[in-house]
Amino acid sequence: MDVNEAIRFKRAVREFKNEKLTDDEIRTILKAGRRAQSSKNSQPWHFIAIQEHGKLEQLSKLGTFAGHLAGAALGVAIITPHPDERFSIMFDAGQAAAYMQLAAWELGVGSCLATIYEPDQARQLLGFPEDLHLRIAISFGYPADESQITQAPQGNGRMAFNEIIHWDTW
Amino acid sequence: MDVNEAIRFKRAVREFKNEKLTDDEIRTILKAGRRAQSSKNSQPWHFIAIQEHGKLEQLSKLGTFAGHLAGAALGVAIITPHPDERFSIMFDAGQAAAYMQLAAWELGVGSCLATIYEPDQARQLLGFPEDLHLRIAISFGYPADESQITQAPQGNGRMAFNEIIHWDTW
Repeated sequence: MDVNEAIRFKRAVREFKNEKLTDDEIRTILKAGRRAQSSKNSQPWHFIAIQEHGKLEQLSKLGTFAGHLAGAALGVAIITPHPDERFSIMFDAGQAAAYMQLAAWELGVGSCLATIYEPDQARQLLGFPEDLHLRIAISFGYPADESQITQAPQGNGRMAFNEIIHWDTW
Repeated sequence: MDVNEAIRFKRAVREFKNEKLTDDEIRTILKAGRRAQSSKNSQPWHFIAIQEHGKLEQLSKLGTFAGHLAGAALGVAIITPHPDERFSIMFDAGQAAAYMQLAAWELGVGSCLATIYEPDQARQLLGFPEDLHLRIAISFGYPADESQITQAPQGNGRMAFNEIIHWDTW
Protein backbone atom coordinates (compact mmCIF):
# COMPACT_ATOMS: atom_id res chain seq x y z
CA MET A 1 0.00 0.00 0.00
CA ASP A 2 1.54 3.35 -0.86
CA VAL A 3 1.53 6.30 1.52
CA ASN A 4 -1.00 8.32 -0.41
CA GLU A 5 -3.43 5.42 -0.52
CA ALA A 6 -3.07 4.82 3.22
CA ILE A 7 -3.72 8.49 3.92
CA ARG A 8 -6.74 8.63 1.63
CA PHE A 9 -8.35 5.38 2.72
CA LYS A 10 -7.60 5.37 6.42
CA ARG A 11 -10.64 5.87 8.60
CA ALA A 12 -11.29 5.55 12.32
CA VAL A 13 -12.12 1.97 13.30
CA ARG A 14 -13.83 1.51 16.65
CA GLU A 15 -15.04 -2.08 16.47
CA PHE A 16 -12.54 -4.89 16.31
CA LYS A 17 -12.44 -8.63 15.76
CA ASN A 18 -11.80 -10.67 18.86
CA GLU A 19 -8.42 -11.74 17.51
CA LYS A 20 -4.87 -11.02 18.64
CA LEU A 21 -2.44 -9.16 16.42
CA THR A 22 0.77 -11.01 15.57
CA ASP A 23 3.99 -10.08 17.36
CA ASP A 24 5.37 -8.83 14.06
CA GLU A 25 2.41 -6.50 13.56
CA ILE A 26 2.69 -5.17 17.08
CA ARG A 27 6.41 -4.51 16.68
CA THR A 28 5.93 -2.82 13.31
CA ILE A 29 3.36 -0.46 14.82
CA LEU A 30 5.50 0.37 17.86
CA LYS A 31 8.64 0.79 15.78
CA ALA A 32 6.80 3.26 13.56
CA GLY A 33 6.07 5.37 16.65
CA ARG A 34 9.68 5.09 17.76
CA ARG A 35 10.88 6.28 14.33
CA ALA A 36 8.81 9.47 14.40
CA GLN A 37 10.73 12.70 14.45
CA SER A 38 10.49 15.07 17.38
CA SER A 39 11.58 18.55 18.35
CA LYS A 40 15.39 18.52 18.73
CA ASN A 41 15.04 14.71 18.61
CA SER A 42 13.80 14.84 22.21
CA GLN A 43 11.58 11.75 21.71
CA PRO A 44 9.28 12.87 24.52
CA TRP A 45 7.47 9.55 24.80
CA HIS A 46 7.17 6.09 26.19
CA PHE A 47 4.63 3.65 24.79
CA ILE A 48 2.83 1.14 26.97
CA ALA A 49 1.58 -1.67 24.74
CA ILE A 50 -1.44 -3.21 26.45
CA GLN A 51 -2.92 -6.55 25.45
CA GLU A 52 -4.40 -7.65 28.79
CA HIS A 53 -8.11 -7.47 28.33
CA GLY A 54 -8.79 -6.40 31.91
CA LYS A 55 -6.41 -3.45 31.67
CA LEU A 56 -7.88 -2.34 28.35
CA GLU A 57 -11.35 -2.47 29.81
CA GLN A 58 -10.34 -0.38 32.81
CA LEU A 59 -8.56 2.12 30.59
CA SER A 60 -11.62 2.40 28.37
CA LYS A 61 -13.53 3.85 31.32
CA LEU A 62 -11.09 6.71 31.84
CA GLY A 63 -12.26 8.77 28.88
CA THR A 64 -15.64 9.80 27.56
CA PHE A 65 -15.23 8.33 24.09
CA ALA A 66 -12.64 5.73 25.01
CA GLY A 67 -15.04 2.76 25.04
CA HIS A 68 -13.48 1.27 21.92
CA LEU A 69 -10.35 0.43 23.94
CA ALA A 70 -12.27 -2.34 25.69
CA GLY A 71 -12.54 -4.31 22.47
CA ALA A 72 -9.09 -3.57 21.09
CA ALA A 73 -6.49 -6.26 20.46
CA LEU A 74 -3.81 -3.76 21.42
CA GLY A 75 -3.94 -0.46 23.21
CA VAL A 76 -0.98 1.90 23.05
CA ALA A 77 -0.77 4.48 25.81
CA ILE A 78 1.39 7.44 24.81
CA ILE A 79 3.18 8.57 27.97
CA THR A 80 4.74 12.04 27.84
CA PRO A 81 5.97 14.88 30.03
CA HIS A 82 3.18 17.27 31.00
CA PRO A 83 1.64 18.80 27.85
CA ASP A 84 1.89 22.29 29.35
CA GLU A 85 5.69 22.10 29.61
CA ARG A 86 6.05 23.02 25.93
CA PHE A 87 3.72 22.83 22.98
CA SER A 88 6.07 20.57 21.07
CA ILE A 89 5.34 17.64 23.40
CA MET A 90 1.84 17.01 22.10
CA PHE A 91 2.86 18.00 18.57
CA ASP A 92 5.50 15.28 18.67
CA ALA A 93 3.08 12.80 20.25
CA GLY A 94 0.70 13.53 17.38
CA GLN A 95 3.40 12.70 14.85
CA ALA A 96 4.17 9.41 16.60
CA ALA A 97 0.45 8.54 16.71
CA ALA A 98 0.07 9.26 12.99
CA TYR A 99 3.07 7.06 12.17
CA MET A 100 1.69 4.17 14.24
CA GLN A 101 -1.79 4.44 12.79
CA LEU A 102 -0.63 4.63 9.17
CA ALA A 103 1.79 1.72 9.67
CA ALA A 104 -1.08 -0.28 11.18
CA TRP A 105 -3.45 0.54 8.36
CA GLU A 106 -1.01 -0.86 5.83
CA LEU A 107 -1.15 -4.15 7.76
CA GLY A 108 -4.95 -4.22 7.66
CA VAL A 109 -5.10 -3.11 11.28
CA GLY A 110 -7.60 -0.41 12.17
CA SER A 111 -7.22 2.08 14.99
CA CYS A 112 -8.88 4.87 16.89
CA LEU A 113 -7.64 7.58 19.24
CA ALA A 114 -8.99 7.99 22.75
CA THR A 115 -8.54 10.96 25.04
CA ILE A 116 -7.95 10.02 28.66
CA TYR A 117 -9.67 12.38 31.06
CA GLU A 118 -8.62 10.74 34.30
CA PRO A 119 -4.84 11.07 34.31
CA ASP A 120 -4.38 10.06 37.95
CA GLN A 121 -6.44 6.91 37.62
CA ALA A 122 -4.52 6.13 34.45
CA ARG A 123 -1.25 6.43 36.36
CA GLN A 124 -2.56 4.13 39.05
CA LEU A 125 -3.66 1.58 36.46
CA LEU A 126 -0.44 1.58 34.44
CA GLY A 127 2.16 2.52 37.04
CA PHE A 128 4.07 5.22 35.18
CA PRO A 129 6.07 7.83 37.15
CA GLU A 130 4.63 10.99 38.67
CA ASP A 131 6.43 13.29 36.22
CA LEU A 132 4.87 11.61 33.19
CA HIS A 133 1.32 11.80 31.91
CA LEU A 134 -1.19 9.97 29.77
CA ARG A 135 -3.52 12.02 27.61
CA ILE A 136 -3.91 9.90 24.49
CA ALA A 137 -4.24 6.17 23.96
CA ILE A 138 -4.80 4.35 20.69
CA SER A 139 -6.90 1.23 20.06
CA PHE A 140 -5.65 -1.20 17.43
CA GLY A 141 -7.25 -4.33 16.00
CA TYR A 142 -8.52 -6.01 12.88
CA PRO A 143 -11.75 -4.23 11.90
CA ALA A 144 -14.89 -6.16 12.81
CA ASP A 145 -16.13 -5.00 9.42
CA GLU A 146 -13.29 -6.04 7.08
CA SER A 147 -14.62 -3.93 4.24
CA GLN A 148 -13.54 -0.80 6.15
CA ILE A 149 -9.96 -1.30 4.96
CA THR A 150 -10.86 -1.16 1.28
CA GLN A 151 -13.94 1.07 1.29
CA ALA A 152 -13.67 4.13 -0.91
CA PRO A 153 -12.47 7.23 0.94
CA GLN A 154 -15.22 9.16 2.65
CA GLY A 155 -15.97 12.19 0.53
CA ASN A 156 -17.22 14.37 3.29
CA GLY A 157 -16.11 15.09 6.81
CA ARG A 158 -13.32 17.51 5.94
CA MET A 159 -13.47 21.23 5.29
CA ALA A 160 -13.10 22.12 1.63
CA PHE A 161 -9.56 22.43 0.28
CA ASN A 162 -10.04 26.07 -0.66
CA GLU A 163 -11.41 26.87 2.76
CA ILE A 164 -8.26 25.89 4.65
CA ILE A 165 -5.50 26.41 2.07
CA HIS A 166 -4.14 29.92 1.57
CA TRP A 167 -1.57 30.83 -1.03
CA ASP A 168 1.47 32.84 0.07
CA THR A 169 -0.60 34.88 2.51
CA TRP A 170 -3.86 34.60 4.46
CA MET B 1 6.68 3.32 -1.78
CA ASP B 2 4.87 1.58 1.03
CA VAL B 3 4.12 3.22 4.36
CA ASN B 4 6.64 1.23 6.34
CA GLU B 5 9.41 2.08 3.89
CA ALA B 6 8.53 5.78 4.00
CA ILE B 7 8.60 5.72 7.79
CA ARG B 8 11.91 3.87 7.95
CA PHE B 9 13.72 5.86 5.28
CA LYS B 10 12.40 9.34 5.89
CA ARG B 11 14.95 11.73 7.30
CA ALA B 12 15.01 15.48 7.83
CA VAL B 13 16.14 17.34 4.71
CA ARG B 14 17.34 20.90 5.20
CA GLU B 15 19.01 21.69 1.88
CA PHE B 16 16.97 21.81 -1.26
CA LYS B 17 17.44 22.10 -4.98
CA ASN B 18 16.56 25.45 -6.47
CA GLU B 19 13.62 23.94 -8.32
CA LYS B 20 9.88 24.42 -7.97
CA LEU B 21 7.61 21.54 -7.00
CA THR B 22 4.85 20.71 -9.45
CA ASP B 23 1.30 21.82 -8.74
CA ASP B 24 0.33 18.16 -8.39
CA GLU B 25 2.98 17.56 -5.78
CA ILE B 26 1.98 20.63 -3.83
CA ARG B 27 -1.67 19.62 -3.88
CA THR B 28 -0.89 16.05 -2.83
CA ILE B 29 1.07 17.33 0.16
CA LEU B 30 -1.61 19.80 1.22
CA LYS B 31 -4.40 17.29 0.72
CA ALA B 32 -2.57 14.85 2.96
CA GLY B 33 -2.64 17.45 5.72
CA ARG B 34 -6.29 18.13 5.09
CA ARG B 35 -7.10 14.39 5.37
CA ALA B 36 -5.50 14.02 8.80
CA GLN B 37 -7.80 13.11 11.64
CA SER B 38 -8.35 15.44 14.56
CA SER B 39 -10.03 15.48 17.92
CA LYS B 40 -13.80 15.37 17.36
CA ASN B 41 -12.94 16.13 13.72
CA SER B 42 -12.33 19.74 14.75
CA GLN B 43 -9.68 20.22 12.01
CA PRO B 44 -8.02 22.99 14.04
CA TRP B 45 -5.85 24.22 11.18
CA HIS B 46 -5.34 26.38 8.15
CA PHE B 47 -2.32 25.89 5.92
CA ILE B 48 -0.56 28.79 4.22
CA ALA B 49 1.37 27.42 1.26
CA ILE B 50 4.25 29.80 0.59
CA GLN B 51 6.30 29.75 -2.59
CA GLU B 52 7.36 33.41 -2.75
CA HIS B 53 11.04 33.40 -2.07
CA GLY B 54 11.00 36.73 -0.23
CA LYS B 55 8.32 35.53 2.20
CA LEU B 56 10.15 32.29 2.85
CA GLU B 57 13.32 34.16 3.57
CA GLN B 58 11.57 36.48 6.01
CA LEU B 59 9.86 33.56 7.72
CA SER B 60 13.19 31.74 8.05
CA LYS B 61 14.39 34.53 10.32
CA LEU B 62 11.55 34.09 12.82
CA GLY B 63 12.90 30.92 14.42
CA THR B 64 16.30 29.86 15.71
CA PHE B 65 16.65 26.77 13.53
CA ALA B 66 14.30 27.89 10.77
CA GLY B 67 17.01 28.90 8.29
CA HIS B 68 16.18 26.00 5.97
CA LEU B 69 12.90 27.74 5.06
CA ALA B 70 14.87 30.28 3.04
CA GLY B 71 15.89 27.65 0.51
CA ALA B 72 12.65 25.69 0.42
CA ALA B 73 10.56 25.34 -2.73
CA LEU B 74 7.45 25.36 -0.56
CA GLY B 75 6.86 26.39 3.02
CA VAL B 76 3.69 25.33 4.79
CA ALA B 77 2.70 27.39 7.80
CA ILE B 78 0.36 25.49 10.11
CA ILE B 79 -2.04 28.05 11.54
CA THR B 80 -4.01 26.97 14.62
CA PRO B 81 -5.92 28.30 17.60
CA HIS B 82 -3.67 29.08 20.56
CA PRO B 83 -1.83 25.90 21.67
CA ASP B 84 -2.79 26.55 25.30
CA GLU B 85 -6.52 26.34 24.56
CA ARG B 86 -6.39 22.53 24.65
CA PHE B 87 -3.60 20.01 24.26
CA SER B 88 -5.31 18.37 21.31
CA ILE B 89 -4.59 21.36 19.05
CA MET B 90 -0.88 20.70 18.75
CA PHE B 91 -1.43 16.93 18.85
CA ASP B 92 -3.68 17.29 15.81
CA ALA B 93 -1.25 19.68 14.12
CA GLY B 94 1.44 17.05 14.63
CA GLN B 95 -0.69 14.44 12.90
CA ALA B 96 -1.28 16.76 9.94
CA ALA B 97 2.45 17.54 9.72
CA ALA B 98 3.32 13.84 9.73
CA TYR B 99 0.81 13.15 6.95
CA MET B 100 2.20 15.96 4.80
CA GLN B 101 5.81 14.95 5.31
CA LEU B 102 5.22 11.25 4.61
CA ALA B 103 3.16 12.07 1.51
CA ALA B 104 5.97 14.35 0.33
CA TRP B 105 8.65 11.73 0.94
CA GLU B 106 6.85 9.28 -1.30
CA LEU B 107 7.11 11.91 -4.07
CA GLY B 108 10.84 12.32 -3.56
CA VAL B 109 10.26 15.59 -1.73
CA GLY B 110 12.21 16.18 1.46
CA SER B 111 11.06 18.31 4.37
CA CYS B 112 12.02 19.74 7.71
CA LEU B 113 10.08 21.25 10.60
CA ALA B 114 10.77 24.73 11.92
CA THR B 115 9.59 26.23 15.17
CA ILE B 116 8.55 29.86 14.88
CA TYR B 117 9.55 31.89 17.91
CA GLU B 118 8.20 35.25 16.78
CA PRO B 119 4.46 34.71 16.50
CA ASP B 120 3.56 38.39 16.18
CA GLN B 121 6.03 39.03 13.40
CA ALA B 122 4.77 35.89 11.70
CA ARG B 123 1.23 37.24 11.86
CA GLN B 124 2.37 40.52 10.38
CA LEU B 125 4.18 38.72 7.57
CA LEU B 126 1.37 36.33 6.64
CA GLY B 127 -1.72 38.29 7.65
CA PHE B 128 -3.64 35.67 9.58
CA PRO B 129 -6.25 36.74 12.16
CA GLU B 130 -5.51 37.69 15.78
CA ASP B 131 -7.18 34.59 17.21
CA LEU B 132 -4.95 32.23 15.25
CA HIS B 133 -1.27 31.42 15.74
CA LEU B 134 1.77 30.07 13.96
CA ARG B 135 4.13 27.84 15.89
CA ILE B 136 5.28 25.33 13.28
CA ALA B 137 6.18 25.68 9.62
CA ILE B 138 7.49 23.00 7.30
CA SER B 139 10.05 23.36 4.50
CA PHE B 140 9.56 21.17 1.43
CA GLY B 141 11.75 20.69 -1.63
CA TYR B 142 13.74 18.22 -3.67
CA PRO B 143 16.82 17.30 -1.62
CA ALA B 144 20.00 19.03 -2.81
CA ASP B 145 21.61 15.65 -2.17
CA GLU B 146 19.35 13.26 -4.09
CA SER B 147 20.83 10.21 -2.41
CA GLN B 148 19.06 11.21 0.81
CA ILE B 149 15.81 9.72 -0.47
CA THR B 150 17.27 6.25 -0.93
CA GLN B 151 19.99 6.17 1.72
CA ALA B 152 19.70 3.33 4.22
CA PRO B 153 17.81 4.29 7.37
CA GLN B 154 19.97 5.87 10.04
CA GLY B 155 20.66 3.26 12.67
CA ASN B 156 21.15 5.62 15.51
CA GLY B 157 19.38 8.70 16.74
CA ARG B 158 16.49 6.96 18.45
CA MET B 159 16.24 5.54 21.94
CA ALA B 160 16.37 1.75 22.03
CA PHE B 161 13.09 -0.09 21.49
CA ASN B 162 13.24 -1.74 24.91
CA GLU B 163 13.93 1.56 26.58
CA ILE B 164 10.67 3.19 25.50
CA ILE B 165 8.31 0.23 25.05
CA HIS B 166 6.61 -1.19 28.11
CA TRP B 167 4.39 -4.27 28.07
CA ASP B 168 0.99 -4.02 29.76
CA THR B 169 2.34 -1.86 32.53
CA TRP B 170 5.25 0.52 33.18
